Amino acid sequence: MPLLRRLRKREIAMNNITMRMNADELILMALREDITSEDITTNSVMPVYQAGEVDIICKQDGVIAGLDVFKRVFEILDDNTEVVFYCKDGDSVKNGDKIGLVRGDIRVLLSGERTALNFLQRMSGIATYTREIADLLKGTKTKLLDTRKTTPNMRIFEKYSVKVGGGYNHRYNLSDGILLKDNHIGAAGGVKEAVRMAKEYAPFVRKIEIEVENLDMLMEALEAGADIVMLDNMSVEDMKKAVSLCAGKAETECSGNVTRENVTKLVDIGVDYISSGALTHSSPILDLSLKNLHAIHSI
Amino acid sequence: MPLLRRLRKREIAMNNITMRMNADELILMALREDITSEDITTNSVMPVYQAGEVDIICKQDGVIAGLDVFKRVFEILDDNTEVVFYCKDGDSVKNGDKIGLVRGDIRVLLSGERTALNFLQRMSGIATYTREIADLLKGTKTKLLDTRKTTPNMRIFEKYSVKVGGGYNHRYNLSDGILLKDNHIGAAGGVKEAVRMAKEYAPFVRKIEIEVENLDMLMEALEAGADIVMLDNMSVEDMKKAVSLCAGKAETECSGNVTRENVTKLVDIGVDYISSGALTHSSPILDLSLKNLHAIHSI
Amino acid sequence: MPLLRRLRKREIAMNNITMRMNADELILMALREDITSEDITTNSVMPVYQAGEVDIICKQDGVIAGLDVFKRVFEILDDNTEVVFYCKDGDSVKNGDKIGLVRGDIRVLLSGERTALNFLQRMSGIATYTREIADLLKGTKTKLLDTRKTTPNMRIFEKYSVKVGGGYNHRYNLSDGILLKDNHIGAAGGVKEAVRMAKEYAPFVRKIEIEVENLDMLMEALEAGADIVMLDNMSVEDMKKAVSLCAGKAETECSGNVTRENVTKLVDIGVDYISSGALTHSSPILDLSLKNLHAIHSI
Amino acid sequence: MPLLRRLRKREIAMNNITMRMNADELILMALREDITSEDITTNSVMPVYQAGEVDIICKQDGVIAGLDVFKRVFEILDDNTEVVFYCKDGDSVKNGDKIGLVRGDIRVLLSGERTALNFLQRMSGIATYTREIADLLKGTKTKLLDTRKTTPNMRIFEKYSVKVGGGYNHRYNLSDGILLKDNHIGAAGGVKEAVRMAKEYAPFVRKIEIEVENLDMLMEALEAGADIVMLDNMSVEDMKKAVSLCAGKAETECSGNVTRENVTKLVDIGVDYISSGALTHSSPILDLSLKNLHAIHSI
Amino acid sequence: MPLLRRLRKREIAMNNITMRMNADELILMALREDITSEDITTNSVMPVYQAGEVDIICKQDGVIAGLDVFKRVFEILDDNTEVVFYCKDGDSVKNGDKIGLVRGDIRVLLSGERTALNFLQRMSGIATYTREIADLLKGTKTKLLDTRKTTPNMRIFEKYSVKVGGGYNHRYNLSDGILLKDNHIGAAGGVKEAVRMAKEYAPFVRKIEIEVENLDMLMEALEAGADIVMLDNMSVEDMKKAVSLCAGKAETECSGNVTRENVTKLVDIGVDYISSGALTHSSPILDLSLKNLHAIHSI
Amino acid sequence: MPLLRRLRKREIAMNNITMRMNADELILMALREDITSEDITTNSVMPVYQAGEVDIICKQDGVIAGLDVFKRVFEILDDNTEVVFYCKDGDSVKNGDKIGLVRGDIRVLLSGERTALNFLQRMSGIATYTREIADLLKGTKTKLLDTRKTTPNMRIFEKYSVKVGGGYNHRYNLSDGILLKDNHIGAAGGVKEAVRMAKEYAPFVRKIEIEVENLDMLMEALEAGADIVMLDNMSVEDMKKAVSLCAGKAETECSGNVTRENVTKLVDIGVDYISSGALTHSSPILDLSLKNLHAIHSI
Repeated sequence: MPLLRRLRKREIAMNNITMRMNADELILMALREDITSEDITTNSVMPVYQAGEVDIICKQDGVIAGLDVFKRVFEILDDNTEVVFYCKDGDSVKNGDKIGLVRGDIRVLLSGERTALNFLQRMSGIATYTREIADLLKGTKTKLLDTRKTTPNMRIFEKYSVKVGGGYNHRYNLSDGILLKDNHIGAAGGVKEAVRMAKEYAPFVRKIEIEVENLDMLMEALEAGADIVMLDNMSVEDMKKAVSLCAGKAETECSGNVTRENVTKLVDIGVDYISSGALTHSSPILDLSLKNLHAIHSI
Repeated sequence: MPLLRRLRKREIAMNNITMRMNADELILMALREDITSEDITTNSVMPVYQAGEVDIICKQDGVIAGLDVFKRVFEILDDNTEVVFYCKDGDSVKNGDKIGLVRGDIRVLLSGERTALNFLQRMSGIATYTREIADLLKGTKTKLLDTRKTTPNMRIFEKYSVKVGGGYNHRYNLSDGILLKDNHIGAAGGVKEAVRMAKEYAPFVRKIEIEVENLDMLMEALEAGADIVMLDNMSVEDMKKAVSLCAGKAETECSGNVTRENVTKLVDIGVDYISSGALTHSSPILDLSLKNLHAIHSI
Repeated sequence: MPLLRRLRKREIAMNNITMRMNADELILMALREDITSEDITTNSVMPVYQAGEVDIICKQDGVIAGLDVFKRVFEILDDNTEVVFYCKDGDSVKNGDKIGLVRGDIRVLLSGERTALNFLQRMSGIATYTREIADLLKGTKTKLLDTRKTTPNMRIFEKYSVKVGGGYNHRYNLSDGILLKDNHIGAAGGVKEAVRMAKEYAPFVRKIEIEVENLDMLMEALEAGADIVMLDNMSVEDMKKAVSLCAGKAETECSGNVTRENVTKLVDIGVDYISSGALTHSSPILDLSLKNLHAIHSI
Repeated sequence: MPLLRRLRKREIAMNNITMRMNADELILMALREDITSEDITTNSVMPVYQAGEVDIICKQDGVIAGLDVFKRVFEILDDNTEVVFYCKDGDSVKNGDKIGLVRGDIRVLLSGERTALNFLQRMSGIATYTREIADLLKGTKTKLLDTRKTTPNMRIFEKYSVKVGGGYNHRYNLSDGILLKDNHIGAAGGVKEAVRMAKEYAPFVRKIEIEVENLDMLMEALEAGADIVMLDNMSVEDMKKAVSLCAGKAETECSGNVTRENVTKLVDIGVDYISSGALTHSSPILDLSLKNLHAIHSI
Repeated sequence: MPLLRRLRKREIAMNNITMRMNADELILMALREDITSEDITTNSVMPVYQAGEVDIICKQDGVIAGLDVFKRVFEILDDNTEVVFYCKDGDSVKNGDKIGLVRGDIRVLLSGERTALNFLQRMSGIATYTREIADLLKGTKTKLLDTRKTTPNMRIFEKYSVKVGGGYNHRYNLSDGILLKDNHIGAAGGVKEAVRMAKEYAPFVRKIEIEVENLDMLMEALEAGADIVMLDNMSVEDMKKAVSLCAGKAETECSGNVTRENVTKLVDIGVDYISSGALTHSSPILDLSLKNLHAIHSI
Repeated sequence: MPLLRRLRKREIAMNNITMRMNADELILMALREDITSEDITTNSVMPVYQAGEVDIICKQDGVIAGLDVFKRVFEILDDNTEVVFYCKDGDSVKNGDKIGLVRGDIRVLLSGERTALNFLQRMSGIATYTREIADLLKGTKTKLLDTRKTTPNMRIFEKYSVKVGGGYNHRYNLSDGILLKDNHIGAAGGVKEAVRMAKEYAPFVRKIEIEVENLDMLMEALEAGADIVMLDNMSVEDMKKAVSLCAGKAETECSGNVTRENVTKLVDIGVDYISSGALTHSSPILDLSLKNLHAIHSI
């Protein structure tokens, strides 16, 4: 494919196909959650079409994520809505910034506002929180991972937001990654047997990750051919030893209640990955709003 | 209906009908989000049925909410799963408390664990945060309300959690409540006209709520017959005046970035309601986990 | 929003957002009910595209309702179909009137005809019947209401048709309105307790309506702070007394097998609302048909 | 299959498989139409389980239809609900008859009441109206047929109700029957060509029905091998001639605004079938209600 | 409809309405089966839009079927994709033929490739196999039929492919055709009774087909007025007798493990129809692929 | 988890959770495909419940797969149906074997028969064909893999059937495996860059597989750290060299039109995996049927 142009520096955006296959249905459901019959307030005072425009304003500093999702909310309500952005996912935004505008039937602007913001605020909140922790890991080899501790039916949006914020994705769900935890090891009868059974059963394109609690288990896991070891509840000392034992043999992941406040103590251990559930389960939203709605002549 | 027994003191639980009509489908979707083909880890090491039991443990102090939802996750995976609770929604729980157990096919316990906890942790997080603010309002006439700033496709769970925590629900969505904001008032041509149009259009069983920014608008709203006025961006002084002007004529709601940290300054104003988006958009989860999985002879 | 133009005199049309959120799915289902694999008759004789046009003809006098729904049927089958109307929802139509035309692939015109007419005829039938009763109430303060006695899965269409005919909507469903009937009162332990419990439980934006059977219950309801009283099975005399007792305190609704034939006897009572299930459960259709199909050169 | 017992005299009931494949989803949708979040009235006054019982009472004379559907409404809300009937579909019922009872959680009884009755009243209304016309055809060879003029998304219930009332079903939809109307004939280039094309295209298990407007077209249809001819807009004289021309060659159907009031003039013509859209599009409901709700000790 | 132009020689294509009503949903499901979150390979190396083009190449001789379905796969992923074909359904294609091209975002071309080919290869495989058998029946009066032995959730595509290959469709499913088999006859109490019951119960537009195992049953079926007899497990001699007995009274169908290899022995019997399950359950795919992907400047 | 009993020798069965999460919906859809309104034949002759029993008979030698799916078809139609098997998935069966029975309402047995067999026959056909090829690889280190060339909306069933037959699963879909093909390599700008980009983008639990066409590309892939190399269109000689070059560094997969007939020539190369699309796209069904239906007294 010689003609293929050099790719631009990577841009982060929710792929259109992903939007079509996954996000659209969830966005439509969210709209239906908010509009079970009709928006009675808006319809009371606006019986007919009126073109208008409204600004998207940041009310906090942070990292923006979910612009395409925000846009789809209005497009699903009405194909003729135009949404223009002055930034892109991953950009830093400041309190007071006008980051875009929505133009279309004012009824669409009003009826879609809350749902669109509910997505954008939450996704940006995750990106913002992720960026803060990822920045603390800069200059080290350690990458920041998310977990499966996502909000039900929001995973496609939340895992994407983690990437926007500079994090990396762990497995998407139970079907696309192997992670042998204590209970799986117990059921199999030991570390070695667990790894063997996973290699036999799982599609061969999967890496095998296994959770270990001490250095003995770690050695057993390495011998059994595990690809990744998750260091669980180990002292900083032991984790350092673990990292050097794994060198060239397996990747290492450190997990367990990692937050903005406590991540720094893990920075020097040298693990390949630190995973944090807080990215998706406890980050506050980024405050945004639609302001300055005004009528325009037409669209 | 003379035989009807005196009702027990109100118990809070997600009504079975609500579960069947609304929650079940969302729970199933959440499970499918996590299991697109199969749980390859569990199926690798557990090819056959094995009865087992696991404890539900609190890892933080807080208020529990969502027990029925937690239970449904396992029942939807397998009708034969038993879930037993030692507490009920709304109870205070402590770090270390064992609050229940799940008994059934170990594969079901492992495959459903994350989804069940994702619901329970988030719902309990909301109930915990709501309880904290609601407690600050105790002894006053002011009630704490939620908003429509909920996570997309989680409203049925989040609004319920607010009630469990001692809050009250504002309108459920755009279809079941009238709330005339600045843009609606502008479109109608004024406060008076907006109220008139809403009374004409909306089902007559709705109260009319209108947002006012100053005392002039308030007076106009009262004259137009608004049932509730939302005091927006008004000084504490003006809000106090507003409350006394409304006495006997309309209910009052105060809104705007209300959090645990800043609610106390609103306590003495005497409004009927304070609404807070933070209850649902920014409360952290309550940490819970499943521990001590062990095989049992049968179920 | 000073630029916002003065609104045109209210036009009645099914809001596009409502169409997108609610109606489209039901229209698609209705089409699938009629075309489970394909329209074998049309496909037998029309293997290829042929542009054509057909007139929409009234075969009875009445009130038209559902034009947008009629149009969506053809658009869902084929985006390229054009539907033109010479009237709008709420207009009176006469037997023989040509009220519009459909232009597009003749196969689309033939395959969508029945489903489109099934909607339009039923909706227009309801609007026609509603108009007849509403006209009998003209000059009085009494408004005509619908009920929840709608055809399953047709409520969004039927309640809209009532409005087109000049009626008003009662609550949309069980989730957006409080109506305490005898059984609820019995369960609560009395009128007063029922009202109190509803005020405590229901979102505060709801009015509380309660059904009363005699003047004693009415007094109790008023004292308890009910917003609306439904007068059930009361004599005309008692209803008149009830209306005067409620003046300035609560709105009044009169219900019970109200039809075109018997509504006049309720006209002078002075209730605020009369509700009639017959509007949606027993009105005959308005007869309409597609006539004069002919080929055209192209569209 | 020699052991197969002699079948009992035909009983009419909606087949369980049909219920599972078709009706259940529509019933669930209808319930969700009425309960978008929760039944706030019932939940206000009944926070906990209370067993109860309510009677099903007829308030008009007629033919009952849809008992299984009525029952499924409550079962879908709660598996533990018991519904007992004292009659079966097709039975004549009288004003005042107690035809069954519902027993279960009172909250289920109250929340399901309206949806269950909306189905039962409409289905019984159709059966009642059908029986009235069918009775007028008794003693003749002519059978009464329904049409595709059914309420959108109600066809499975409405066509069944016609059978309960003693009518017969025409084709279910566009996919399972051939009916060549004037426009199809025009497209094909004539009666003969239309029949030929349908025989070539349609699954060979279909009969070919064709609409004819005069005796010439009828002769052409018979020569072309049509199985059924629909006599459209023909005089009684011509229809009689048509019937005798068709004898032994094709079945005959007479159509066009047939109602209870005008059917008698068609009785003596001797056609095989008379079809009437009014059966499903304009029959009023049969009035039924749930009365005498009372608490019971348990179920 | 005098203006209606003479129809072109029949072209075979999946009707757009059928596509919209039936196929689109199944195509979307198939895409979601293959893309549960995102196409991680393509998205890794192609972060941004790049226009491209790819050829559709035949790798075997055969009959093409499903071009419209192939096209819809890409359109559903992205409306802006262009698909051009150099042939139409039913055309013979040769190994090496370039039969079309796909032009659009290269990410869409790569992500949709497998699903689009999975449809096209299977549908063309069926058309190819059907054509082979149908050709063996050329010059006789016998037509080739499919059965209900289709792949679950693929019937709409498979029955269409049979028509493309020159076969004819038997009934579509259990709801649109009567076929009385041995067990039905046993349940009814005999051939005569079975036919009578079917005529009484089934929509009158259905023909009655009945399976007979010998000439006695055949005679009984003819007397009872069966429209079609299926000759089951009868010798060639008996089938020939059966055909002559049915002449002018009923159509005849011969069934039972008919394949390309054994159909010739049935050719001279003179039955009206031969049905073959192998057409849809055991035909191999036709090998096709997308080749020569290259970037283009824009689309 | 010390109490956990030693696992029985691996049994192959479709996991109940997989059935609930994935298969049930597809089974229900397949039933609805076959029963759009009702089974008119069965309902004609069997108006009432009649208990019965029917045998499941093999009509060809092969490997059985899909017993649980077969069973679910009947359970979804009617919970009270009993299905008993005398074998389990993966067992060899012989022509004439009675492998189980179905017991329940005869109407359920008849209406579900075709759909249940359509699943079981296809799944068993795949298992049978897979077993034949897998047996040819016995005694070597080479494992047999499936591909994504599955029937649309049948992947969950078809990939399972491959495992039952002794094959292994390649990635499930585009979302859970990385496979860099020529077009991806071109887009990235080379083998090395493609591998680097995949490692950066994809969840870190994925192995990176890359397609190579010659030994130079192979070396580049190994240097870049690919985990698996797919040898495409290489001579047997080159493949042998490739295998030895990869030893200890990467796994090897050989692909391309592999069938029962040509697999033996690949046996001695020593690749880790051979993948074959034919397993799922071109294996004929295994012939099975339901025979000997008879009434029983009750179930």
